[in-house]
Amino acid sequence: MRAVDVIAKKRDGAVLSADEIKWLIDGYVAGDIPDYQMSAFAMAVYFRSMTTREIADLTMAMVHSGDTLDLGAIPGVKVDKHSTGGVGDKVTLILAPLVASFGVPVAKMSGRGLGHTGGTIDKLESIPGFQVELSEEQFIEQVQEIGLSVIGQSEKLVPADKLLYALRDVTATVDTIPLIASSIMSKKIAAGADAILLDVTVGNGAFMKTIEDARQLARTMVDLGNAVGRKTMAVITDMSQPLGLAIGNRNEITEAVQVLSGKPSILRDYIAELAQMMLRLAGLKKTLPEILDHLDNGQALAKFEAMTRAQGGDSTHWLEPLKVAHQVEVKAPQAGVITQMEAMGIGLLAMKLGAGRAIKADSIDFEAGINLAHKVGDEVVKGEVLATLYSNREITDSDVQEFLGNLQIGPSAEPIQEILEVIE
Amino acid sequence: MRAVDVIAKKRDGAVLSADEIKWLIDGYVAGDIPDYQMSAFAMAVYFRSMTTREIADLTMAMVHSGDTLDLGAIPGVKVDKHSTGGVGDKVTLILAPLVASFGVPVAKMSGRGLGHTGGTIDKLESIPGFQVELSEEQFIEQVQEIGLSVIGQSEKLVPADKLLYALRDVTATVDTIPLIASSIMSKKIAAGADAILLDVTVGNGAFMKTIEDARQLARTMVDLGNAVGRKTMAVITDMSQPLGLAIGNRNEITEAVQVLSGKPSILRDYIAELAQMMLRLAGLKKTLPEILDHLDNGQALAKFEAMTRAQGGDSTHWLEPLKVAHQVEVKAPQAGVITQMEAMGIGLLAMKLGAGRAIKADSIDFEAGINLAHKVGDEVVKGEVLATLYSNREITDSDVQEFLGNLQIGPSAEPIQEILEVIE
Repeated sequence: MRAVDVIAKKRDGAVLSADEIKWLIDGYVAGDIPDYQMSAFAMAVYFRSMTTREIADLTMAMVHSGDTLDLGAIPGVKVDKHSTGGVGDKVTLILAPLVASFGVPVAKMSGRGLGHTGGTIDKLESIPGFQVELSEEQFIEQVQEIGLSVIGQSEKLVPADKLLYALRDVTATVDTIPLIASSIMSKKIAAGADAILLDVTVGNGAFMKTIEDARQLARTMVDLGNAVGRKTMAVITDMSQPLGLAIGNRNEITEAVQVLSGKPSILRDYIAELAQMMLRLAGLKKTLPEILDHLDNGQALAKFEAMTRAQGGDSTHWLEPLKVAHQVEVKAPQAGVITQMEAMGIGLLAMKLGAGRAIKADSIDFEAGINLAHKVGDEVVKGEVLATLYSNREITDSDVQEFLGNLQIGPSAEPIQEILEVIE
Repeated sequence: MRAVDVIAKKRDGAVLSADEIKWLIDGYVAGDIPDYQMSAFAMAVYFRSMTTREIADLTMAMVHSGDTLDLGAIPGVKVDKHSTGGVGDKVTLILAPLVASFGVPVAKMSGRGLGHTGGTIDKLESIPGFQVELSEEQFIEQVQEIGLSVIGQSEKLVPADKLLYALRDVTATVDTIPLIASSIMSKKIAAGADAILLDVTVGNGAFMKTIEDARQLARTMVDLGNAVGRKTMAVITDMSQPLGLAIGNRNEITEAVQVLSGKPSILRDYIAELAQMMLRLAGLKKTLPEILDHLDNGQALAKFEAMTRAQGGDSTHWLEPLKVAHQVEVKAPQAGVITQMEAMGIGLLAMKLGAGRAIKADSIDFEAGINLAHKVGDEVVKGEVLATLYSNREITDSDVQEFLGNLQIGPSAEPIQEILEVIE
């Protein structure tokens, strides 16, 4: 087999065999197929796409490019969840303990963040002492004991994805659905998932900018998951405004704990719906009131506390307000209804305040961030506080203007429903 | 500027600026832009193509990636000619001296061959003593003195093309007209051509397989040449059967000398038409009879002899039959008219007999090759000699069968006209 022939075949729109795809991925990871052939291949895939069967073969070839996690020692259906990312996304922090509180084991690997704010792992690290790096044995043992663990992604899983992603990033081949889908799904499968709930975010704060693109990615991943024997569902979530009220790291832990404590929150219904789907994927049928009850009766919070304790975290300070050198309230310049709140713009402001990384080497200031007081659809009076900015560097008027530049106030607007569609 | 943005721009079908193209080529040649970005770019060009202006900018960026030849010291319009390649293609060997015999200077660089048979330079080297490597000064001086020189391509011209071609070859991005056109034209322009005649071959023995592809390549190069101030014309030549009767190296010199001596030949009219166009590009209007007269009155041959002498070649043996250890006549298995003679298949057989290189490092046996006795449209009787195979290795029955496998005899067929179209 020659790589140039496989590239030409895809370039000409033909369907590759499982052997050809496996040979390509194995050869690439082994260093026998150079970057310049793989980037030409990726660009051919950009234009010609792949069938579900090809994407499934690509995904499994990537899964087998490195270690895989065997969660067989944990009884029950292991359901994983993945979000394509958003601003203020603390969903896993609430959803994982909520699902675990129904006896469904959640053994989850999460990532760090690059861009606006930290990832789930960064947010967990804002809890003093919280260990996100456990050995495989510790990880499985903890799930066996308390039914829940969230740790950082093992470096040994899916080396093909690491190589490919770095290459795609510099060759304008990131935005192609077969490669996005196989990248996401290979990591979930390698991490031992039996079933997968996908949260495909859409809007200017998300990777997918249009509902059509989001739908296509969701459909591709659901078909792909089912094709490789992993029961898969997807929701499409509106990410035109930030999720919830907190944008940062420790303040997102605070918001998550509040939701887990049954406090009123705009996130309750959204997360209850996601939990219902995850439970269904695990074979458990629960009504929304039954699920919300676990937020109100402390069972979900107990799981989160148990995990925090098991992973060495100190939960005594997680409800405390952010401690920073500077904080500034942003006030409404006029009266009216908030009609728009650009997720990406506000996320990038949070990054500038210290809450995120511009490059991988940057460190995160867990105390920096933004707390919103209002969301799209809320009526505000002139001079009312819209949000508070927190930073350990001086907060300037231009930061305030940047926040306001991402906001629009008009005569009327409806609140935004998070879940736009369910795809299964 | 970032390479990934230029790639993305082309990927999205936008038109690149001259600056962007120049930056990309300069960066690539300097080693600042890695192969994996250039191959992704080439694949994007494969799918999105380029405008004439972009191709012109690409071509000139490539021209300026290395040395350029200044033929200003030679008076008159310097017309170059390029063929996209064929089996038995000895056109330059006849055309260059024929045009030079009208006082139009021909200072031509030619290539070596890879595949079926040698290139023009290999064929010239089959003349004992013929020097194909002259210094720039010697080359120009010879053209000033006798009006004709054909030498090997300087390694210093168009380094961007060498890099790009090697990369395209292994990334399935060879077959894209903007890159083919800029590769060909950059070499002609760097070699100092004022005007260019392009011979775009079509058929199974050629790079372009369909008349539509050939027409598109010819049109692209003609527009491109004119856009950069080089008067350019193109002919589309049928390459479904070999050109002329000899396929090899020294036997092609013999056939060329015979045509230059006014001997009857199926190539006379074809080459006279090409000469008429080259002369026209140089500003000289000549009729076909006037041109054929230079074949019949020895003036064209005298130029070829003068060049051979000037470049150290020994012309005393060039009409001698091939001297090989083995030769086998292939006889017609049935009576009828030759309806097909596959150029590529016969060319590859010539290579196996020793006349060509399978890989760059191979050496060529100048005495090996094939002499055809007939062409498409000829009536033959059973047992009549169709061709003679020459080799210094044993010629087997499977070689004979291979030749016959590339031939079809049927009830009737018209002779093939070489020139299918003229594009200007």
